[in-house]
Amino acid sequence: MAAAMINERDLDFMLYELFKSEQLLKRARYQDHDRMTFNEVISTAKVIAEKHFLPIRQKLDTDQPTFDGEKVHLIPELKPAIDAVNGSGIGAATADYELGGMQLPPIIASAAGTYLSIAGGVGMGYNMLTTANANLLEAHGTKELIDKWVKPMREGRFMGTMAMTEPGSGSGLGDLNTKAIKQADGTYRISGNKIFISGGDHDLSDNIVHLVLARLQGAPKGVKGISLFVVPKFLVNDDGSIGADNEVALAGLFHKMGGRAQTSTALSFGEKEGSIGYLVGAENQGLKYMFHMMNEARIMVGTSGAVLALAGYHYSLDYAKNRPQGRLPSCKDPLSPMVNIIEHADVRRMLLAQKAYAEGAMALVFYGTQLSDDEKTAPTAEQREYAHTLLDFLTPIIKTWPSEYGPKANSYAIQVMGGHGYINEHPVEMFYRDNRLNPIHEGTTGIQSLDLMTRKVPMNNMKGYLATLSEMEKTIELANQMANLQGFATELTTAVNTLKRTTKAVLTLMSTTNIDLALANSVKYLEMFGHIIIAWLWLKQAMAATEGLARQPHTDDVNFYKGKLQALQYFYRSELPKIALWEQTLTSADSTSYDMQVDWF
Amino acid sequence: MAAAMINERDLDFMLYELFKSEQLLKRARYQDHDRMTFNEVISTAKVIAEKHFLPIRQKLDTDQPTFDGEKVHLIPELKPAIDAVNGSGIGAATADYELGGMQLPPIIASAAGTYLSIAGGVGMGYNMLTTANANLLEAHGTKELIDKWVKPMREGRFMGTMAMTEPGSGSGLGDLNTKAIKQADGTYRISGNKIFISGGDHDLSDNIVHLVLARLQGAPKGVKGISLFVVPKFLVNDDGSIGADNEVALAGLFHKMGGRAQTSTALSFGEKEGSIGYLVGAENQGLKYMFHMMNEARIMVGTSGAVLALAGYHYSLDYAKNRPQGRLPSCKDPLSPMVNIIEHADVRRMLLAQKAYAEGAMALVFYGTQLSDDEKTAPTAEQREYAHTLLDFLTPIIKTWPSEYGPKANSYAIQVMGGHGYINEHPVEMFYRDNRLNPIHEGTTGIQSLDLMTRKVPMNNMKGYLATLSEMEKTIELANQMANLQGFATELTTAVNTLKRTTKAVLTLMSTTNIDLALANSVKYLEMFGHIIIAWLWLKQAMAATEGLARQPHTDDVNFYKGKLQALQYFYRSELPKIALWEQTLTSADSTSYDMQVDWF
Repeated sequence: MAAAMINERDLDFMLYELFKSEQLLKRARYQDHDRMTFNEVISTAKVIAEKHFLPIRQKLDTDQPTFDGEKVHLIPELKPAIDAVNGSGIGAATADYELGGMQLPPIIASAAGTYLSIAGGVGMGYNMLTTANANLLEAHGTKELIDKWVKPMREGRFMGTMAMTEPGSGSGLGDLNTKAIKQADGTYRISGNKIFISGGDHDLSDNIVHLVLARLQGAPKGVKGISLFVVPKFLVNDDGSIGADNEVALAGLFHKMGGRAQTSTALSFGEKEGSIGYLVGAENQGLKYMFHMMNEARIMVGTSGAVLALAGYHYSLDYAKNRPQGRLPSCKDPLSPMVNIIEHADVRRMLLAQKAYAEGAMALVFYGTQLSDDEKTAPTAEQREYAHTLLDFLTPIIKTWPSEYGPKANSYAIQVMGGHGYINEHPVEMFYRDNRLNPIHEGTTGIQSLDLMTRKVPMNNMKGYLATLSEMEKTIELANQMANLQGFATELTTAVNTLKRTTKAVLTLMSTTNIDLALANSVKYLEMFGHIIIAWLWLKQAMAATEGLARQPHTDDVNFYKGKLQALQYFYRSELPKIALWEQTLTSADSTSYDMQVDWF
Repeated sequence: MAAAMINERDLDFMLYELFKSEQLLKRARYQDHDRMTFNEVISTAKVIAEKHFLPIRQKLDTDQPTFDGEKVHLIPELKPAIDAVNGSGIGAATADYELGGMQLPPIIASAAGTYLSIAGGVGMGYNMLTTANANLLEAHGTKELIDKWVKPMREGRFMGTMAMTEPGSGSGLGDLNTKAIKQADGTYRISGNKIFISGGDHDLSDNIVHLVLARLQGAPKGVKGISLFVVPKFLVNDDGSIGADNEVALAGLFHKMGGRAQTSTALSFGEKEGSIGYLVGAENQGLKYMFHMMNEARIMVGTSGAVLALAGYHYSLDYAKNRPQGRLPSCKDPLSPMVNIIEHADVRRMLLAQKAYAEGAMALVFYGTQLSDDEKTAPTAEQREYAHTLLDFLTPIIKTWPSEYGPKANSYAIQVMGGHGYINEHPVEMFYRDNRLNPIHEGTTGIQSLDLMTRKVPMNNMKGYLATLSEMEKTIELANQMANLQGFATELTTAVNTLKRTTKAVLTLMSTTNIDLALANSVKYLEMFGHIIIAWLWLKQAMAATEGLARQPHTDDVNFYKGKLQALQYFYRSELPKIALWEQTLTSADSTSYDMQVDWF
């Protein structure tokens, strides 16, 4: 495992040159930190990743969790690895000091997490879900709930889940059937079945805190009658000790194509008297709270898509630099030495595509992560509101683009390595399998595209949409002042104009045509928007690289910056032009799929 | 497993309406057959598939072959399943009567094989490699070799492999190092290491017949010094009984992402005195013979890509027809019943994409299979020569397009099924993993694209290229006479003109520019050509469907034909326009990948 997991120079570039994270130090919340403490946290994460996770990465994949009818067993090496993360404080890096956190900016925690995700893969998923669960309860729960459940989660003694999906309804949350009945003591009795609950059972913590969506007796049908409950695996006594079993039974383990170290479970709640549940917030408001967690989870899914893409890129790059095979077409001498495969133009094409996808996606998820910080800690209320507007608008794209293009990058990693990429001696086939979940969970690509077109674009007089356009236009103006980037700035202007035309056309269709037809190609709208956002972020990266080159740095940095400019060119020449096809599909309201009849298949 | 594996009506359409296989009955070789015997063979294959393979399909994937240091173990159910295939005669369906075959047309055998491949997955790979090995020996071996090795392979007692790849050279066959030393008795002693040998060891047959590429002492370097040898696992005595061990040792099993029931092995030949090998044909001509087998294997790989795409399509289609979830955007009543997910336009889009890819790819591989028959059995020498010209030219496309687009179809099958597509309760995640090998083995996509551009296009004064164009132009002329297809015929004409312009441009570049640069985007040329070929075959399918509709058939057939026309429309609207982007990349000689420096990554 000699290959570098990622390029540290690039992480540095993202944090300090692209997103200028040092400026965060001016904010009161971060006043105890400096660039050195930022980097120390990242280094610590890297050390833990290399020491605890990398050696067990393959085993986490091959030795799937097992259920012996009583308990779920994970490989014994995972618990100490997770403990090492929690012991280092990184598990709660962004939390308040008084909750045991380090008050680090989310973007720094995300950078540290990159190492852990690549090395620990899905083993880290338990921590991430626990953090998201704790964050939701902190935002919407009573002090009593926070004291009882969040504290032990922050300490790593308990872990958390989100339990939404049911066998009969899947993405259609409004149809869920899990029941809640209010008791005289203010608690509720919960009963019903959930599936695909990540981390729904395991032997990694003393207790598991499920956040369960359920419907109260007499509540309205549909999404307006859903409430949210804390339903622990074990009740907890007033002194904090573990109490009685709460009737949360494991009904089965799913065997997934990837992400195998994270249990995916079918859970049965309250088959006898009902599991005891504690209401979070107000009755019938559950979906709103869950979206708090879900929006965070969506950024995490996008991050997973991007990080796995990056992992495959660096692994296959290292392989290509060191694997001799064949000769260039121009070489006619079969006696000449073989070249390393990176010398073959087609291998370079597949590496460059991975770089363009992976680093473009990383820039997007870091941007989203920074917005999630800005909406809370930016200096002025106006700035916080603006960040919120942008993040809320961009969430479907942040979730989807890296999820869809990450697996494409991983497929190239396999192809670069040929037969060696297809066997488990190397991790790229695992990255490919792991990443395929990302377009599915936390809202499929189709669901995200409907969210974008029907809610996010028109919402608040198109405020989020217009803010996003204005951010892109600012960049174009600045890039136009750099001689080497003017051509690209012009291309992005053209692309933004395509986006404006297309958006206008689809909004008109939505208000004048059959809505089912108007939305039939929504995924193409999401893909087009995503491509333009990534093109914009590549232009921002190129601006930072151009500034870097102007500082006349040493050779390694010159090479690094030139690589950024070449990836920009790749994206603009090979990817961005695709938007013309999607414009055609969308503006013509192509009805091919819509018209297809069930009986014709 | 209630879902139909494939649509029988479509198989019927491909054989009898699209490729008019009944006309083959006029050929002397097939005079004993009629449409009924064709269909009986297909039905028999279906019965064996359902009875012997479908029940063990999942187990073949989950219970990987193991090596206990002495023997390789496969699940015990596989051998009787393979025996059932051999016992039915389907294993040697296309072989001559005197070699124990049924003298069936390859296209009929391929149709029968579709069921076996879907149900038995890779378990069938052992048979297919054995057939290809036997075919090669029949074409290039002496009578002695054929009597000794081919007969027991045709009877299913022995199985065969092709042993080419070595640890140090991969796709670069010219660099292989396995040695052959001639002995006084006319045999050779073989020593060296091979990797990724499919079926290289197992417990399914009495013996394994390896076809091994090796270099004679003093032979020229490079591809001109390679000879081909039969190297059996066990020697065979003159009475046909199994003799001594031949020093073919299993050095290890690879663990693949998919295709797990087919062992992938590292083999060590002749570590002590050298394995005994028997020369096939003449010395130093080995690669030529191997290409005989390889061309056949390439069609098999394309077929695998197409069949797996079809399998995922029908499985996810069946799921989508029966899984209720959500409501249409136009439905505002949360109390109304859920619809089956096939009612959602985006699900229909993903199903239609699969149909367009899978049935387009099936048409291509059936076309290639028919050409492989025509080059041997067409009535006139001229027709046989013409078929050979077309097949030789199209082989890189027949191998690659289904391999590249098959996995894309499988990804849609997963997405249609959401979380259920990601778990092994359903086979679509397995199809996705299995199919990912196809762009790699028997010559990667990159290798195929160089073969197309540097050999197949310019060869023999562009004879194959021009023949292919003329076939497309014939179809355009006929389609122009059908009112409903004129628009598509015009679009195909435009596409063919794009192909002509692009081909001219790349040939000019190849002769005037740095050849490494001129070939840097060769994969895009292959992809463009593939798309145009698939568009052409969709137009042919649409013509057959239009003829079918003109016969005023019953409702089921009307629906079937309308589905074909809708898939045509999908391909022409959503896929064919992509060629404009590839034209731009190719004709501008985009140097982005070529210019990218190793140090910039």
